[in-house]
Amino acid sequence: MGTTDPVVPTRGRAEKRERIPRDPSDDHNHRMAGARRRLLTERTGAALRHVGEAGTYDPAALKGNIENFIGMAQIPIGVAGPLRINGEHARGDFLVPLATTEGALVAGYNRGMRLLTESGGVTTAVVEESMQRGPVFSFDSALRARDFGVWVAEHFTEIRKAAEATTRHGRLTDIGQYQVGPLRYLRFNYTTGDAAGQNMTGKATRAACEWIKRAFPGELSYLLSGNIDTDKKHSHVNMLLTRGRRVVAEAVLDRRILRELMGVDAAELFRWRQVTMTGAALAGAASNGAHAANGLAALFIATGQDAASVAESHASLTYTRLLDSGDYYWSVTLPALIVATCGGGTGLPTQRECLELLGCAGPGKAAGLAEVCAATVLAGEVSLACAVVGDAWVDAHERLGRNRPGAPRDDR
Amino acid sequence: MGTTDPVVPTRGRAEKRERIPRDPSDDHNHRMAGARRRLLTERTGAALRHVGEAGTYDPAALKGNIENFIGMAQIPIGVAGPLRINGEHARGDFLVPLATTEGALVAGYNRGMRLLTESGGVTTAVVEESMQRGPVFSFDSALRARDFGVWVAEHFTEIRKAAEATTRHGRLTDIGQYQVGPLRYLRFNYTTGDAAGQNMTGKATRAACEWIKRAFPGELSYLLSGNIDTDKKHSHVNMLLTRGRRVVAEAVLDRRILRELMGVDAAELFRWRQVTMTGAALAGAASNGAHAANGLAALFIATGQDAASVAESHASLTYTRLLDSGDYYWSVTLPALIVATCGGGTGLPTQRECLELLGCAGPGKAAGLAEVCAATVLAGEVSLACAVVGDAWVDAHERLGRNRPGAPRDDR
Amino acid sequence: MGTTDPVVPTRGRAEKRERIPRDPSDDHNHRMAGARRRLLTERTGAALRHVGEAGTYDPAALKGNIENFIGMAQIPIGVAGPLRINGEHARGDFLVPLATTEGALVAGYNRGMRLLTESGGVTTAVVEESMQRGPVFSFDSALRARDFGVWVAEHFTEIRKAAEATTRHGRLTDIGQYQVGPLRYLRFNYTTGDAAGQNMTGKATRAACEWIKRAFPGELSYLLSGNIDTDKKHSHVNMLLTRGRRVVAEAVLDRRILRELMGVDAAELFRWRQVTMTGAALAGAASNGAHAANGLAALFIATGQDAASVAESHASLTYTRLLDSGDYYWSVTLPALIVATCGGGTGLPTQRECLELLGCAGPGKAAGLAEVCAATVLAGEVSLACAVVGDAWVDAHERLGRNRPGAPRDDR
Amino acid sequence: MGTTDPVVPTRGRAEKRERIPRDPSDDHNHRMAGARRRLLTERTGAALRHVGEAGTYDPAALKGNIENFIGMAQIPIGVAGPLRINGEHARGDFLVPLATTEGALVAGYNRGMRLLTESGGVTTAVVEESMQRGPVFSFDSALRARDFGVWVAEHFTEIRKAAEATTRHGRLTDIGQYQVGPLRYLRFNYTTGDAAGQNMTGKATRAACEWIKRAFPGELSYLLSGNIDTDKKHSHVNMLLTRGRRVVAEAVLDRRILRELMGVDAAELFRWRQVTMTGAALAGAASNGAHAANGLAALFIATGQDAASVAESHASLTYTRLLDSGDYYWSVTLPALIVATCGGGTGLPTQRECLELLGCAGPGKAAGLAEVCAATVLAGEVSLACAVVGDAWVDAHERLGRNRPGAPRDDR
Repeated sequence: MGTTDPVVPTRGRAEKRERIPRDPSDDHNHRMAGARRRLLTERTGAALRHVGEAGTYDPAALKGNIENFIGMAQIPIGVAGPLRINGEHARGDFLVPLATTEGALVAGYNRGMRLLTESGGVTTAVVEESMQRGPVFSFDSALRARDFGVWVAEHFTEIRKAAEATTRHGRLTDIGQYQVGPLRYLRFNYTTGDAAGQNMTGKATRAACEWIKRAFPGELSYLLSGNIDTDKKHSHVNMLLTRGRRVVAEAVLDRRILRELMGVDAAELFRWRQVTMTGAALAGAASNGAHAANGLAALFIATGQDAASVAESHASLTYTRLLDSGDYYWSVTLPALIVATCGGGTGLPTQRECLELLGCAGPGKAAGLAEVCAATVLAGEVSLACAVVGDAWVDAHERLGRNRPGAPRDDR
Repeated sequence: MGTTDPVVPTRGRAEKRERIPRDPSDDHNHRMAGARRRLLTERTGAALRHVGEAGTYDPAALKGNIENFIGMAQIPIGVAGPLRINGEHARGDFLVPLATTEGALVAGYNRGMRLLTESGGVTTAVVEESMQRGPVFSFDSALRARDFGVWVAEHFTEIRKAAEATTRHGRLTDIGQYQVGPLRYLRFNYTTGDAAGQNMTGKATRAACEWIKRAFPGELSYLLSGNIDTDKKHSHVNMLLTRGRRVVAEAVLDRRILRELMGVDAAELFRWRQVTMTGAALAGAASNGAHAANGLAALFIATGQDAASVAESHASLTYTRLLDSGDYYWSVTLPALIVATCGGGTGLPTQRECLELLGCAGPGKAAGLAEVCAATVLAGEVSLACAVVGDAWVDAHERLGRNRPGAPRDDR
Repeated sequence: MGTTDPVVPTRGRAEKRERIPRDPSDDHNHRMAGARRRLLTERTGAALRHVGEAGTYDPAALKGNIENFIGMAQIPIGVAGPLRINGEHARGDFLVPLATTEGALVAGYNRGMRLLTESGGVTTAVVEESMQRGPVFSFDSALRARDFGVWVAEHFTEIRKAAEATTRHGRLTDIGQYQVGPLRYLRFNYTTGDAAGQNMTGKATRAACEWIKRAFPGELSYLLSGNIDTDKKHSHVNMLLTRGRRVVAEAVLDRRILRELMGVDAAELFRWRQVTMTGAALAGAASNGAHAANGLAALFIATGQDAASVAESHASLTYTRLLDSGDYYWSVTLPALIVATCGGGTGLPTQRECLELLGCAGPGKAAGLAEVCAATVLAGEVSLACAVVGDAWVDAHERLGRNRPGAPRDDR
Repeated sequence: MGTTDPVVPTRGRAEKRERIPRDPSDDHNHRMAGARRRLLTERTGAALRHVGEAGTYDPAALKGNIENFIGMAQIPIGVAGPLRINGEHARGDFLVPLATTEGALVAGYNRGMRLLTESGGVTTAVVEESMQRGPVFSFDSALRARDFGVWVAEHFTEIRKAAEATTRHGRLTDIGQYQVGPLRYLRFNYTTGDAAGQNMTGKATRAACEWIKRAFPGELSYLLSGNIDTDKKHSHVNMLLTRGRRVVAEAVLDRRILRELMGVDAAELFRWRQVTMTGAALAGAASNGAHAANGLAALFIATGQDAASVAESHASLTYTRLLDSGDYYWSVTLPALIVATCGGGTGLPTQRECLELLGCAGPGKAAGLAEVCAATVLAGEVSLACAVVGDAWVDAHERLGRNRPGAPRDDR
């Protein structure tokens, strides 16, 4: 199986009780980060000079974001745009920060943004909103599980009250119910304001479940997640029922601009679209588009989103129309886009600056950020589709994505 | 739909010809990055002070990784471990760097690593390797498409020669064929050494397709990707036929240690496992485990992997056994793990240091890194499963993941 | 591709205007059936003696069931049981008619029924009910589609009135809404009494859509099925949201009886269940059980159900528990079981007799029939699982499924 | 949950030892069938007069097809066509027997056949062939499982020999390998001549596994089916890798004939096709077409196919093109069509006559029958698509599918 060099990182095995140094009273400072780096360097030989670069940030501000802090990963940011968005929340010409280490990515999105902007811009809308935690209740028989479900529906008001008592921003909108055998899976659906809401909904749902446990006439056994919330993983239930925000970005690509800027014919693009859509169905893919994950991951890292949510957020459905005018209507729908402008990593120094660059920092801006994400994804989709159809694709990677010395010269 | 603040980033619209400054002769330097930041600040008001922090890196080294460079995103790194791995490639006690902004993540993985290490460690193996590009050839009829497929199979040797002529490290192992109507989808499967290989295989496959076009007796029309390579997206074809590396991590969790460290009973864990597995089937999830994407995204960002590949890499299949001894065998299989130790972002300053921390920097180390990834995922799986079953979950987030001031106090 | 004999059925090509004889005023009688058979025999040489066998039925009674009637297909019926069902609707010891041409099928189900009955019987319950038609409304933009969705929700009462005006038995319970780009897919969910309801819901939904078209302030363009009702095909949306009836059958298999009757150990059975469940996840299967379609197809044909609905109905989720007692709890959930005791083929002569055999003929019996179906499926599941684990499987086919002379001697 | 009438079929419970009468020495005759019917009538009150109708068949000939035989189910057959097929195997104008109880089905397919035939007919081809049995081998560790896989690949010739020794018609073409944790799933792929081959491949694979067990240096534990053969259930692996035959039917619909016969515009049809394809992706459907299962179930029942295989066979991928001429190219691909012209029910009286009607009876005809199936499916797809787009759909059901007296008057 490929390469065979053994990877033996440390000088000898860890002592039974050897642990990473930690100061329970004050752990987020340069002193403790340095102490940890020294141990790591000692045991592995890794220098960690760049990781430890003190820079301008304040370690104390990282308290809610990281444990066993040792320093900072530095990811290059490129800017793409301007991207004109005529959204419900996002309006104007956006300059989009993309943090990535993949050559040609920013250039590709930039190219798509130019096409979209010159065609009049992208229209965007958030069409649904729902974050969830999905507990499961286990019974002795299917009938008891069903009866429990009826009880839950009848007590929705009290359950909502118990859930919402734990949060200022979360609102429980409804509880979906799905039964398998003697198991009743619930899907608590919330709106969570400008936070992503995974933790908020976890806390609220646990409170609700504890209330249910006390109030329900009978013994109850439950797990806070029965795996139908599908946190941090793609799923078909998300495709259907939304996780986070369901956002649409749409544009009409002017056929003349398509020809001039991208060197492709709208009808040709549409013809091949039939083929790639069929390929996606054949493959059983989470997207019938091209590469939503690329733009999302780069935007997520730049703006302090949870990069693991690329797993859910990259799901996408493209729907297009070749218009009678010869222009090409193109839409992309992200059914499970998870973004925040408060909480998580959104308050960290570079992350906040990138949110500010988009006008999306702080409360009240999450829907706008969602629209920027969708518009950016659309730019990447049209750009790559044009490149593949126009066969400029491999060439672009050749020119821009050349590796630096030390790496195998011709291969990436 | 939730928040309604308009997001209007820029002061007025972009002039038709206004563009992001770029110096074609020498664009990767602090001067040009500064020029771009100034434009952005001027148009949006965003300060970009932290993004622009000069630090210790050399912008010229970013040439193959980014375009329109404006500075660095800083992502906090925490270290988890030691994690004992008894792999085919990775052997020893690993201290794993995780770059994330999500509180409680490092602590959770750390807890799982302790459990695994005290139980004797994780056994790992790469069981398959395959990176692909999937062109599609379009015909007038199904019969012609089928005949073409026969021709391709008969000319495999020449096709391989044409493909491999473009690369030092890529090897074409086989070509899968899948027909829908008059379309013949090919899946070129390669090994790509220590690079992830998306570009390498794109280049090689294009050369192969061009050779085919010249050699085939008849007109040919093709697209370099028919969407069954499913680059940057989860798919069922990857689950079955592997993309990148198929890696297994397995361990036997000592029932006494489970009880002591995690406060859970092995039989109880196994019992609930039946429920979460069923939930995953009900949801149509890309994983029947818990949250592989969390550990992978954090490791990917720290070590210079392509974060967008979390889309493919987070697919996972957990298989467990409650042993007669009462101990608990747990395995996780990642069918589409995409990692590299050469090329892409692996040579950047902090990224390389994190690879060195794992003993995984440079040629010959990708299989080892794949094993570290799988072992890390396993740590996260057992940790979260124990937490949910032991109901410590929400509590942990409460304690560790508290948001900093400015964000809504109680919600994340 | 395998065999190459050309299949040239007819003596020469059909004349341009040659058509199958039909008498618009009275077409369902032996005379017209005979006229058609004669034409067929003349053109193809096929005798059609058995097909044309007059038998005891009255062709006039077939009017709503078939066009261009030429005779009867005869499918052998075997009976399996008794199967004890302790259901909500079905109660007693059932003798189940199975129409099939597959040797060993009846014997296999019979064996499972004996195991279940001797273990105390099967408990059954219908836990949800929902038949649908899923129109799609197409707009110029995502925002208009979303606004339309809001309007639909606000006018649910009127829409329901319009739908229900067309039917005595259908009740519109709710309308699910799912948006992709500028398309608003609706899923009209009904209960349909004792009819399967595909046509009833089609008619009702069309009336509702026509009402919507008149009442909505703006132009509307719609298709009566946007393909998310997934009529006559398996889908994930059915798995989650039910189509027809969601039915559970569950039983506790006595470990001693398992050992005696089936020669297998409960723990062994459970151990391998982990493996087959994992296999189903790997394969992306519509069922994580064994062969629900076998029993369902045989029961459907015997009792006049729509055999094409096997496509939806065979979806199934098995969930099991190895109890502390050593006995084995086994449940199967059919999320999309489509059955009727009125309408369709349920009133035809042999079909009605088979329904009577089950006590399920006529109004008020569909839920009971659904429970019989689920219990029968469970019998087949435990039987085959035991056979495979006990390795009696191939042997059973050898003994019972031997082909008659004329067919290749050793192969089926 | 809907209707609540209890279903209590039998007069009292079955006695512990009461069993269905069976004569081990000669069970397939009218005497034993009569004895069983009498018992059933006695216990349930069901008359079984039509089921018991002696007719023209010989019960002795049913020996390999049914156990506990009690009589015949009678399913009405209608004929549709002529359908012109220009296939590789099927050539000419076919008159297609469809056994169904669903009104409007035959008329709908007939309408599609007329459209296709007048447009010049359907082109068909079998593009792949593969029937499987998928054993799984279980190990202590992933590495052992992988090593076993290597051993299997190295011993393919001997394994094939062992498998093929059990069959005259089965040929083992290759063995796919898929690993999850310590489990090695194999997928034995065969061609099976003119039999469907489920049993043939089961027997051959068991022999192969037993050979492996003897020859492999080490202990082996396996199950003959690990559930990735996905017998009698839809699966994504079938969609990709074929089960039975992968068949394509394609035609160019003349736009003038479309307009005249169906009252629809080709461009309009294509426009809505984009919408229904998107709906299928949204729903996670086994088909992005309309209702393949309808025609297949009816053809299967008429011609003695295994009706349970509708589960696998109904999977389908439609791919279409709006041609520059304004005509409409339409293809449907069935990736998992399972048909036979020998064995199973194909030799029974009415079934054989229906095969003869198609020129498909006996050895050498399975590929031809597969093409007829695909062409029939295509007829149903274009017919329903035209009906829905032309909005004639509900009307057709109203007119043709009217229920007979006794059933609720307006509902089906």
